[in-house]
Amino acid sequence: MNKKHQSWYIIVNICIWVFTFHVSIIYAQSEQNVYTPAEKLTVVGKIVPTPKPFQRVDTLQYSELPSNVKERVVHSAGIAISFVTNSTQITAKWCTEGSPTSATMTEVAYRGMDLYIKKDGQWVYAGVARPQVGKECFSTTLARYMDTEEKECLLYLPLYNEATSVSIGVEENAYIRPGKQPFKKRILIYGSSIVQGAAASRPGMAYPARLSRMTGLNFLNLGMGASAKMEKPVADMIAEMQADAFILDCVPNSSPEEITQRTAYLIRTIRQNHPDAPIIVMQSVFRESGNFNLRTEANVAQQNENILEEVEKLKRSGIESLYFIPSDDFLGDDHEGSVDGTHPTDLGFDRMLQVIEPRIMEILKMEL
Amino acid sequence: MNKKHQSWYIIVNICIWVFTFHVSIIYAQSEQNVYTPAEKLTVVGKIVPTPKPFQRVDTLQYSELPSNVKERVVHSAGIAISFVTNSTQITAKWCTEGSPTSATMTEVAYRGMDLYIKKDGQWVYAGVARPQVGKECFSTTLARYMDTEEKECLLYLPLYNEATSVSIGVEENAYIRPGKQPFKKRILIYGSSIVQGAAASRPGMAYPARLSRMTGLNFLNLGMGASAKMEKPVADMIAEMQADAFILDCVPNSSPEEITQRTAYLIRTIRQNHPDAPIIVMQSVFRESGNFNLRTEANVAQQNENILEEVEKLKRSGIESLYFIPSDDFLGDDHEGSVDGTHPTDLGFDRMLQVIEPRIMEILKMEL
Repeated sequence: MNKKHQSWYIIVNICIWVFTFHVSIIYAQSEQNVYTPAEKLTVVGKIVPTPKPFQRVDTLQYSELPSNVKERVVHSAGIAISFVTNSTQITAKWCTEGSPTSATMTEVAYRGMDLYIKKDGQWVYAGVARPQVGKECFSTTLARYMDTEEKECLLYLPLYNEATSVSIGVEENAYIRPGKQPFKKRILIYGSSIVQGAAASRPGMAYPARLSRMTGLNFLNLGMGASAKMEKPVADMIAEMQADAFILDCVPNSSPEEITQRTAYLIRTIRQNHPDAPIIVMQSVFRESGNFNLRTEANVAQQNENILEEVEKLKRSGIESLYFIPSDDFLGDDHEGSVDGTHPTDLGFDRMLQVIEPRIMEILKMEL
Repeated sequence: MNKKHQSWYIIVNICIWVFTFHVSIIYAQSEQNVYTPAEKLTVVGKIVPTPKPFQRVDTLQYSELPSNVKERVVHSAGIAISFVTNSTQITAKWCTEGSPTSATMTEVAYRGMDLYIKKDGQWVYAGVARPQVGKECFSTTLARYMDTEEKECLLYLPLYNEATSVSIGVEENAYIRPGKQPFKKRILIYGSSIVQGAAASRPGMAYPARLSRMTGLNFLNLGMGASAKMEKPVADMIAEMQADAFILDCVPNSSPEEITQRTAYLIRTIRQNHPDAPIIVMQSVFRESGNFNLRTEANVAQQNENILEEVEKLKRSGIESLYFIPSDDFLGDDHEGSVDGTHPTDLGFDRMLQVIEPRIMEILKMEL
């Protein structure tokens, strides 16, 4: 071989080696995880069918909704993916759309996800999907080094962004199948950022999600941060939705005057379309910022007085199966249950659940 | 006046008006709030004196510390400002230095602050200082619309950044004075991210801070995320520190082997300098990621076995006033107490405190 030939020979060999090396890396990676689009598995927590699978409401269908409501109801809060797998490792790729996180929420709650797996009949925390700062699409390993037993899994989608795409990865030699719908009936919760899950540490800790895992009933999250003001188009939309029961936790966002003006329309409109469905109205959680802020303290007191008055009036006017949960001690008595004086943390939610869960279940057992 | 003069007259008048208007705005703003540098008030929670007031340790003094330890101990975790004021509004300006937040913490915990005010003898949440994204210096109103009664205040500094400057603002017609040292004795807690407060919702919710408010004793935060590995220079530094009692919560970051190799040196060195101080060793909180991850489950079990063995050996060798708190049920039994399978949330900390607070107080009441 002359020198020229020798050089070519070396170059060609290097190219072949580089090509083979890269192909083998790509192959090894694709061998590790096979991805399934989440919409091909079982989508849990949907309020209505929508063209985009991880939105809660199709805003094109409800053009009269206020713009801030439209912004919130496309968030994936309360939506989860149910699947079954025997993979020892579960990964995910996902993209989100929406505004960046707030200073009082974690990125994981805002744009991330968390995984639960059933163990001895109980949904148990298994892993968390951390979004990476400055990106809109992410990938992560949620759980690894597990045994090969078949597992029922539930992956909660982001609370405060829309998940525009979600894929779940399992090892190539494992299977993944759509899971069962894990929760029964349909109980719609309409409310503020507190329902949407604003200061939960991760999506599965929002209080409707916890209620579902605790009770086995399907609590549907229609929380809309800063925007649950009982406007007429929202009331009309809610009344159209299919549900076995309605929980209204919309006092925190509505001014005392709005509560007086709008509560009757909301409840009467729901009752018209759902003659027998129980309607449970919750007072506003006490705002801990009102510990010293005299205006906040007075405002919450007035909101809670007005909602009680409205519900009493509606009951007297003959509306049946209408229930009221007062907010006494929702957050305990040490004032440590909120992140910012407004939004309950996981601790605040836990204390709130200790009060509302038995009361809600008592009503639902009687009514459903 | 001719046209030229008239134009000049108008222009000059506009200039004077604009100038006066802006000066009056600036004056009004400066009139609203008068700022006091926090180091001129009472600094609470300091472990040792440092040239930079809001660092926990002067790393120049301890040149042999591992670099990751140096990075953490300058964070302001556990440091708070005690002051007294009758202002109806409290504001703050502050700057921080350090890495950006993690996906499982809030910005408020990482780089923000929170305010407590004493009410009927109890420290009660009053407000939160939200950092603004993309900045290193921030300003905010922590509380407003309060009455004019004199108030004892406690402002907790950021957990995971160093506060490089902090000023507290009150109305011009109000006073602000250094407050009392609110907590007695000195109990040093050496530990991991869990001690530093990694998944607390805000600085005041880190567990040493909660312990201080609950008990009136001064629990000093020497938490260092991912870096509490009982290295010799760290052990030597801790042994030099003045404290009435020591709590060692450093199992989570140390490998089972490191626990076996290093625990005796740490405890013996502390005992040498502090012949009578009680030393309380805590097992690692169970990692919820170990619910399914077999390696994590095995690792935590081994860590906890090894620490128990070391403490038993040291007790048998004659070391007195050495106590052990097992981690059974630190986080309850529903697996809902962590953000990511490792770090307790406010809920996890609350459950942990229900176990460790009575046990710690029993020991301290007996010993101090």
